[in-house]
Amino acid sequence: MKVGVFDSGIGGLTVVKSLLEHQLFEEIIYFGDTARVPYGSKDKNTIIRYAIEAVEFFKNFELDMIIVACNSVSAYALTEMKESTICPIIGVVEAGVLATSNSIKNKDANILVIGTHATINSKAYEIGLNRLNFQNIQTKATPLFVPLVEEEIINGSILDATLQHYFHDITHPDALILACTHFPLLSSALQNYFGEQTTLIHSGDAIVEYLENNFLFIKQYKNPKLQFFSSENPEALRKIAQKWLYE
Amino acid sequence: MKVGVFDSGIGGLTVVKSLLEHQLFEEIIYFGDTARVPYGSKDKNTIIRYAIEAVEFFKNFELDMIIVACNSVSAYALTEMKESTICPIIGVVEAGVLATSNSIKNKDANILVIGTHATINSKAYEIGLNRLNFQNIQTKATPLFVPLVEEEIINGSILDATLQHYFHDITHPDALILACTHFPLLSSALQNYFGEQTTLIHSGDAIVEYLENNFLFIKQYKNPKLQFFSSENPEALRKIAQKWLYE
Repeated sequence: MKVGVFDSGIGGLTVVKSLLEHQLFEEIIYFGDTARVPYGSKDKNTIIRYAIEAVEFFKNFELDMIIVACNSVSAYALTEMKESTICPIIGVVEAGVLATSNSIKNKDANILVIGTHATINSKAYEIGLNRLNFQNIQTKATPLFVPLVEEEIINGSILDATLQHYFHDITHPDALILACTHFPLLSSALQNYFGEQTTLIHSGDAIVEYLENNFLFIKQYKNPKLQFFSSENPEALRKIAQKWLYE
Repeated sequence: MKVGVFDSGIGGLTVVKSLLEHQLFEEIIYFGDTARVPYGSKDKNTIIRYAIEAVEFFKNFELDMIIVACNSVSAYALTEMKESTICPIIGVVEAGVLATSNSIKNKDANILVIGTHATINSKAYEIGLNRLNFQNIQTKATPLFVPLVEEEIINGSILDATLQHYFHDITHPDALILACTHFPLLSSALQNYFGEQTTLIHSGDAIVEYLENNFLFIKQYKNPKLQFFSSENPEALRKIAQKWLYE
């Protein structure tokens, strides 16, 4: 099995990390659109245009599947991506909604979704969760978490002030959906802020769960082959991948 | 006089504001590359490629001058831009260096330059200031200020923690060069942090000073015509322009 993983930049590496931990693919082709990152503050039509270009890029490889490891793309462009290829495409939004439903049995549970402006404005998670009969959903765009992660500020006073800024009037949730692939790097800070009773839903783990539940033919492979591509400076991407995936 | 003003996104509007206050042009064509913003975290070659595309865009208009209102572009791509058009091009880096020299007479003065990673890594301000015999220069990449301004966080505890994070070990400067066109929106916070003895150098005012000193034929025009273009969602850009320029 050969998979393409697409993200606007580096965030999707957290999904690759989950794939590697579970050894689900023989070969992983990662593409990060680092020359045009971030997507989360951009317009729906721009996101769709860039996503279709990513599908074209992946046509250079004979892929068995494409994983969209970017919540903003999954929220806005999955239909258009599917229309432009016959390769199966799965996205983190659908996987995240199903993972939430699998781990939270009480339909009255309080669920908080955090992500970029684009993801939150799309209401994609709310629509999916509503379909599965969850009604008690709060959403909050937390765009500052992205540059904080990119600047490696994952604890300390700036992050504390930012958590307080975003969440001071939020009811502590039963489940917190990390609807941006940067946010797993803030897992311990978020868990600490909300307390142990809050279940964190992580896009990478959700994708693994989705694959294991829906693609029963999936085998395990030791030492999958990894290739990294980006729309600028692939060397910089590879360095971050080395750090995020193996350190 | 008809001028094109180029920025990676919305930051260059602070330069437009200075131009409007001084009524230096009959017509201003603003282009923000909002579909690919920000440039400040991107690679030199990417910035050059995008900058040349902006010059091509401006060839649609009969311009008398192009002002590069983005420090990252001015630092990396001004030569390449000049090679691709006969239209005069001026950038905020050169203007900022000259404005500093005009207002700070003591060559031993302590000068602090703050900007994006790209601008600071370019060393463009240091090179320019060294040529004018300033030797006592500190630089600091302060990339988090950009999303803070875009999220309209221009005071309060997150900004206080961020100021402390970046400047806790910095000697208070005689001059502070705001080498990113977002930063004028943090002027009062920065002035407050460093105290009244620190002179702030603002890219927009520096451009006005540069024009008045070097283009003696420049006249004043009442009610200049303004046109806004962007690579995505021009309506969103126009709304921000309305807010930043007139409120």
